[in-house]
Amino acid sequence: MTSFHIAHTDAGSSARVGRLGLAHGEVATPAFMPVATYGSVKGLTPRDLRECGAEIVLANAYHLSLRPGAETVARLGGLHRFMGWDGPILTDSGGYQVFSLAPLARVREEGVEFRSHLDGSAHFLGPEDVVRVQEALGSDVAMVLDECPAGGAPEDVVRAATERSARWAARATAARARSDQAMFGIVQGGTNLALRAESARATVALGFDGYAVGGLSVGEPRDVTWAVAAATAPLLPADRPRYFMGTGTPEDLVRLVAAGFDLFDCVLPTRHARNGTLYTSGGPLVLRNARYAADGAPPDERCSCYTCGHFSRAYLRHLHMAREPLAVTLNTMHNVTYYERLMQDLRGAIAAGTLEALVDATAGEAEKEHACQA
Amino acid sequence: MTSFHIAHTDAGSSARVGRLGLAHGEVATPAFMPVATYGSVKGLTPRDLRECGAEIVLANAYHLSLRPGAETVARLGGLHRFMGWDGPILTDSGGYQVFSLAPLARVREEGVEFRSHLDGSAHFLGPEDVVRVQEALGSDVAMVLDECPAGGAPEDVVRAATERSARWAARATAARARSDQAMFGIVQGGTNLALRAESARATVALGFDGYAVGGLSVGEPRDVTWAVAAATAPLLPADRPRYFMGTGTPEDLVRLVAAGFDLFDCVLPTRHARNGTLYTSGGPLVLRNARYAADGAPPDERCSCYTCGHFSRAYLRHLHMAREPLAVTLNTMHNVTYYERLMQDLRGAIAAGTLEALVDATAGEAEKEHACQA
Repeated sequence: MTSFHIAHTDAGSSARVGRLGLAHGEVATPAFMPVATYGSVKGLTPRDLRECGAEIVLANAYHLSLRPGAETVARLGGLHRFMGWDGPILTDSGGYQVFSLAPLARVREEGVEFRSHLDGSAHFLGPEDVVRVQEALGSDVAMVLDECPAGGAPEDVVRAATERSARWAARATAARARSDQAMFGIVQGGTNLALRAESARATVALGFDGYAVGGLSVGEPRDVTWAVAAATAPLLPADRPRYFMGTGTPEDLVRLVAAGFDLFDCVLPTRHARNGTLYTSGGPLVLRNARYAADGAPPDERCSCYTCGHFSRAYLRHLHMAREPLAVTLNTMHNVTYYERLMQDLRGAIAAGTLEALVDATAGEAEKEHACQA
Repeated sequence: MTSFHIAHTDAGSSARVGRLGLAHGEVATPAFMPVATYGSVKGLTPRDLRECGAEIVLANAYHLSLRPGAETVARLGGLHRFMGWDGPILTDSGGYQVFSLAPLARVREEGVEFRSHLDGSAHFLGPEDVVRVQEALGSDVAMVLDECPAGGAPEDVVRAATERSARWAARATAARARSDQAMFGIVQGGTNLALRAESARATVALGFDGYAVGGLSVGEPRDVTWAVAAATAPLLPADRPRYFMGTGTPEDLVRLVAAGFDLFDCVLPTRHARNGTLYTSGGPLVLRNARYAADGAPPDERCSCYTCGHFSRAYLRHLHMAREPLAVTLNTMHNVTYYERLMQDLRGAIAAGTLEALVDATAGEAEKEHACQA
């Protein structure tokens, strides 16, 4: 079901431009997936999302399976129909969320026992359940369940989790029943390059439609993130899409594209929008700053989004300070457009052979934030 | 600047269909004004508002003068440009809000002394200040400052407030400096018909562009509201628009249109949207009700809004329960469309001579809510 055609590769880096074909359409890569954890990119309608340039979104199987329930979504015609988005959807398995949100999650070889963060009810998820949930949701791409140790966990813990993730990945492939859904494996191994290589070998041996790198951007320095990413990408098949999970800042994306990654997701643009921080070609714009109180300029003169076309910094600051719901919508439109345009610029630069200049231009950006898992 | 042309009058009631011409365009009357207290209809972009059928919106001079400040809005090109809405805007003076929100508001003959509900800072507003603020905002219609006694206030208090409001109205007309802004007077008098008649006489004598009825829907039974409205409308010039302030349910609007009113505003459709209650042709739909958890039908089969065209009750319930910001947008689109379509139906019924049937059809609707001042 999945096709992946590489149209251009960069001479000076591992970057490539391609088209990823999925059940609900094609995606130009490198691509950024806005995060729709609960089946909605916070504050945006599907038509807003399209206008922002998004071609694929990410939803979360863990969250949707707890509420409203995967069977409910299936009965209503699947996730695409449910959320009114007819383009590709990638569902994260929710492994990360189980380990980070659920109190007292207990890992056994069979899977994870945990209590819902919503109502405390007891749940069990094995790798097969996670496949079943995502097949019920009907996403274009399903992710395997993996064990995600906390950032900075001791090496033996990371090793055990990585090895268990590989065994779970094998069970996930065996459990597949839908031929119209792609499945991506996930390489774990923390910041240990040898462990990453082992994990890559074991995961690739299972033959997935695409390969993700997980367990990074969890607190380690960003140059470590980039180094591990750069070392891991070449261990993954060149003819399959590579997905770097849960990252990052614009600078991260530029670096990781140069390292050979094709897919990204991150809550930063949507979360920052809600907190009143806008990405602009001149750096981050923090709306609560009093200097914008009477500033009649749009957030970014070089942006073509609906927000920049119609509203001033002063108005957006006013909406943010007054906690008007429209602030979320307008700020999110802008930030998602910024990210999607960055990806478009990256694709153009790779095709034109000018990626190096773009990497240099974003190096050392003021933006300090790094980790951004939902 | 203001023109008002009546195209049809109803044979069996005092209803009329007209066109109100204002500085920023024409409005088909009877018209409903969605409430944009802080310069934004909560959750809707201006293009959403247009799509919902709105031709005029209401903003609040009191709120906008405290934040971001009328001078700031003026410096940024006026309220239309500030909020990105190029159609007509009516600004409420904010008298009601001063009396209901500001702690320790003290009325003197000169005006009202009060403390900001935002930061406790001391303010004074006289009728001239309120004109100045609204002229700075540049709304199409300005409302005079009036004194609004609480619902159920003793008759001598209501009388004193009504008489003071008339003196303030005279000062407001004398303070006008903009010829492109209409000004409406406000008839007070509580539920006392004699006092209403006195107030109408005094207000009409000042020669406003339109006339509002204020101080109703503040707790009195709804048949009393309707009776006072029906008795007051004929005391106002037939060739000027009549505005019934801060009301109401769909049934209220039908009754008040039949009584001869042309303009309405109410927070009900937008507030209910945020609370997850949708207006439908089959009655109110309360999204938190578990019966909608797997309901694949749109909110209202007979509605043509974006929400009903793309989403199920189950999805809207899910967004509401998960407190997703998109819930506010989609629910508000639907409820505002419902209100705007009701007005369209009323205009059609008056023109076709079938208003009586519409009045009968909405009589005794399940909806119990009545008062709805912001």
